[in-house]
Amino acid sequence: MASKDSEKLEIMRHSAAHVMAEAVLSIFPEAKFGIGPAIENGFYYDFDLPRSLTVDDLPLIESKMREIIAANVPFTREEVTKKKAKALFADQPYKLELIDEIPDAKVSLYQEGKFLDLCRGPHIGSTGEIGAFKLLSIAGAYWRGDEKRPMLQRVYGVAFDTEEALAEHLNKLDEAAKRDHRKLGKELDLFSLHEEAGPGLVHWHPKGAVIRRIIEDFWKDEHIKRGYDIVYTPHIAKLNLWKTSGHWEFYRDYLYSPMEVEGQEYIIKPMNCLGHILIYKTSHHSYRELPLRYAELGTVYRYERSGVLHGLSRVRGFTQDDAHIFCRFDQLEDEVAGVLDLAMFMVDTFGFSDYQIFLSTRPEKYAGDTKVWEEATDTLSRALTRQGLEYSVDPGEGVFYGPKIDIKFEGWQGPTIQVDFNLPSRFDVSYTGEDGQEHLVAMVHRTVLGSMERFLASLIEHYAGAFPVWLAPVQAMVIPIADRHLDYARKLEAELKNDGVRAEADARSETVNLKIRRAQLNKIPYMLVVGDKEVQASTVSVRLRSGEKIDSQPFASFKKSIKAAIASRSAGLQLD
Amino acid sequence: MASKDSEKLEIMRHSAAHVMAEAVLSIFPEAKFGIGPAIENGFYYDFDLPRSLTVDDLPLIESKMREIIAANVPFTREEVTKKKAKALFADQPYKLELIDEIPDAKVSLYQEGKFLDLCRGPHIGSTGEIGAFKLLSIAGAYWRGDEKRPMLQRVYGVAFDTEEALAEHLNKLDEAAKRDHRKLGKELDLFSLHEEAGPGLVHWHPKGAVIRRIIEDFWKDEHIKRGYDIVYTPHIAKLNLWKTSGHWEFYRDYLYSPMEVEGQEYIIKPMNCLGHILIYKTSHHSYRELPLRYAELGTVYRYERSGVLHGLSRVRGFTQDDAHIFCRFDQLEDEVAGVLDLAMFMVDTFGFSDYQIFLSTRPEKYAGDTKVWEEATDTLSRALTRQGLEYSVDPGEGVFYGPKIDIKFEGWQGPTIQVDFNLPSRFDVSYTGEDGQEHLVAMVHRTVLGSMERFLASLIEHYAGAFPVWLAPVQAMVIPIADRHLDYARKLEAELKNDGVRAEADARSETVNLKIRRAQLNKIPYMLVVGDKEVQASTVSVRLRSGEKIDSQPFASFKKSIKAAIASRSAGLQLD
Repeated sequence: MASKDSEKLEIMRHSAAHVMAEAVLSIFPEAKFGIGPAIENGFYYDFDLPRSLTVDDLPLIESKMREIIAANVPFTREEVTKKKAKALFADQPYKLELIDEIPDAKVSLYQEGKFLDLCRGPHIGSTGEIGAFKLLSIAGAYWRGDEKRPMLQRVYGVAFDTEEALAEHLNKLDEAAKRDHRKLGKELDLFSLHEEAGPGLVHWHPKGAVIRRIIEDFWKDEHIKRGYDIVYTPHIAKLNLWKTSGHWEFYRDYLYSPMEVEGQEYIIKPMNCLGHILIYKTSHHSYRELPLRYAELGTVYRYERSGVLHGLSRVRGFTQDDAHIFCRFDQLEDEVAGVLDLAMFMVDTFGFSDYQIFLSTRPEKYAGDTKVWEEATDTLSRALTRQGLEYSVDPGEGVFYGPKIDIKFEGWQGPTIQVDFNLPSRFDVSYTGEDGQEHLVAMVHRTVLGSMERFLASLIEHYAGAFPVWLAPVQAMVIPIADRHLDYARKLEAELKNDGVRAEADARSETVNLKIRRAQLNKIPYMLVVGDKEVQASTVSVRLRSGEKIDSQPFASFKKSIKAAIASRSAGLQLD
Repeated sequence: MASKDSEKLEIMRHSAAHVMAEAVLSIFPEAKFGIGPAIENGFYYDFDLPRSLTVDDLPLIESKMREIIAANVPFTREEVTKKKAKALFADQPYKLELIDEIPDAKVSLYQEGKFLDLCRGPHIGSTGEIGAFKLLSIAGAYWRGDEKRPMLQRVYGVAFDTEEALAEHLNKLDEAAKRDHRKLGKELDLFSLHEEAGPGLVHWHPKGAVIRRIIEDFWKDEHIKRGYDIVYTPHIAKLNLWKTSGHWEFYRDYLYSPMEVEGQEYIIKPMNCLGHILIYKTSHHSYRELPLRYAELGTVYRYERSGVLHGLSRVRGFTQDDAHIFCRFDQLEDEVAGVLDLAMFMVDTFGFSDYQIFLSTRPEKYAGDTKVWEEATDTLSRALTRQGLEYSVDPGEGVFYGPKIDIKFEGWQGPTIQVDFNLPSRFDVSYTGEDGQEHLVAMVHRTVLGSMERFLASLIEHYAGAFPVWLAPVQAMVIPIADRHLDYARKLEAELKNDGVRAEADARSETVNLKIRRAQLNKIPYMLVVGDKEVQASTVSVRLRSGEKIDSQPFASFKKSIKAAIASRSAGLQLD
């Protein structure tokens, strides 16, 4: 039923694209047409027009579309020979190209009003069946996605059954736009990207760096508590090392070109694993020493086409919250369970929910032994069950070197845990067993946050920039009502700072309302407004960034509350 | 007088080289001789011998030398024509080559006993005048330092006036060898370098990384207290940016070769300044916002010849404790004074002393205006005076872009503060003044520790690996006397860890003495030995790594003391 509904909706959206094309034709009789499919939530059509469209053109096109819809003209289908079709589309070069590529003897055409299109269909009966729609945007699109072909103008629209559904969707888009980490990143002065330095390379501004540092410190402390060791490894290494590992062979497209030093080729590291292996191999290990867990906030560089780069969430350099566990196979279940526990702890701390867990099994091409794969996959499955986590199996979607677990969220890639049967044998990463023999270790790659860049993108959108108090770059803004209250404001600022609270006093000669407005725009959790009454009573009037006012309270009790909220990594702003 | 003494000593050392050559000739009649000069504290001679020497050969050579010295044979000088010299040295190819290169018509020869050498002199009167000496080591050395010429065997010795002076020097060498950070780094498992990854690229092991993290956290906290903002910038940037800055032109020999991304050249960053400039320039700044102080623990990569690489102190990749201050010229004195204050605070915290401060002035080739140079140099000088710091002027030793202050220590390069007149104008780094006009900022580059790598090298040697308790990778080792005391030991370990103390319990089934010995070798500040008495009384028997025993004390009071020692970054281990 749902699927039939969605099929109906898709047909309607496709028809809406035709109606838009008809509307465009009525405005630009010389228009040449590309393709016009239905897409998720709507449709687009690619046009070759005598002039560039602007968003101001969209209402006119919309109103022409409304006329066509009101006229309720039928869609009619006709099958013709390719020869006839070519005659009909003689002045439509893109359509001619499409006709030439259709293998069948005949092609189908759809007509509605004055607009005839080459189209496989199906379509709705008549234009009146089109529901609620809106044109959203215009973008350039190369004909057939080929940058050597002409650039067409693609007009995007959305269409739904009802006005309510449309309104809901537009509202969602609006909300998403407000939460867009690229927009908020600029407004809150968190980070920047610079064409001069190179696309996809993130510069963390002071306020973004505060958030990053807090997360990094929290991450490191939590890892140390759980028996990880922090390490640091260099950002470059000899290419030969990456040939031995197989990365040069398997991931070459993502690797940067080599640099040469004294006749040796080096590359900037795409992963941290090899450095950790070298550290492990510096000394000999006995079964008693395992597991060893090396964790590093390691910055790696991978090539991505400039076309796919996107704010912080798709970049060319990023800092993974990486760790590698070297253990015995009989320790693997405990280790994976431990990582899952840590992952779910982080997920909870940052207030994420609605995840899906996938266990990905052996793909067609794989390294290692089938039996070992099966055992390891079973081990992952047991660890999930033990942690009480439900999961789906993603058959054949493991990495070539081992099975993996992914915990996925909307808008956040989430933790990943991968077993590796490849590197231990390539680098002979081993330990002496109780039997006195050398055994290869079981090696686990894992990230919990993914990368600091992508995780910040997720966090910004997750919190819509209103970070919980423990993460907020500025936690409290002291706002003196008049200049004579500035000394008191400075005193509170200093006392809060002294207790590790990121406080500022707004000393500018402006109205209180303006200062409150600015603090709200900067999404500062608490504003402490202080005037005569507060100075006399040693109190503060607290305002939340939501606008909510909390009764005046002793400064000492505010300080105690905010410190408790920070220490507990509280999600809300209510003070006890 | 001192200079005359040292000249005499140098002549004696040079003569000792001849005596060593004579001794070698008596053992290897077919020996070919290279050169044999005096050097600091001693001498060497390069030999081409029928077999490789080992350190076991040194006592034999020494005893031959002692015979020659006891015989007290005279050194005699003779001047001969080059032709005659060539006849005399017909079977000494290296000497023949040297003779050919002497521009004079005649050359001077020195004879002592059976050994005749081509030598400018002067020498002592007779071999009996040679004081106390010792041969130390053998190394390979290419003839004339040219790796395409034969590899000779260089034997190093030291020589002094008296046995006491020699003993003192040998003792110093011994101490330095024990403190050598490369040796201690391995013994204490702090870091490693790997030929497979590339020379000069440091891998920080868990224990070294603990020290690094503590220092980094301390550094960041202290910077934030002093009004710095932490930032993060990428490790690669387009080459063009480094052309604009002038680095490509001025420091090309230290830069890595470019990598290519989508037709653009990128290099791995040799400095952090450009990233900080890009962040500064992201928004417009008014005079009211200055100073801005951007600090970054930024890892940079610079090419160094493999021959000069040395442990952690000369590497190819290192993490600078970098900061750039953007201020008005009228703020420069305060800012420099602030950096000096921070620098001296760090110097004190790590227990360094015996420094020399240099103010380096305008070199012959320089960027910027002479008058601005003079004003800035005066400003640096005023800041030094204001901080009560004595300094020497190093004329003409400033960087081309501005004057600088260096605080230098034996074995540690120390803090550096540099004013930069070059980058602000190249990148138009400006602010709007009170006059409404745009002005270039005064820019300061500064590091306090230098780099994490080099600083750790200095710290290891400074503390001889016995780090003060706040820096020690393991702060307390709990040592159970028998297995029945293990539970109590584990309990103390857990309680200490819970309070942030890096404690371990040594659970191995070994003797207490062995456990103590191992903890001492690992230079762990405190050993808590626990047996029946301690379990019953909830006490610990404290031993220091020096071997000193402290009376048994309640565990609670030990915990309080060690926490206080850590919090105060105490240099000593005595508990109050």
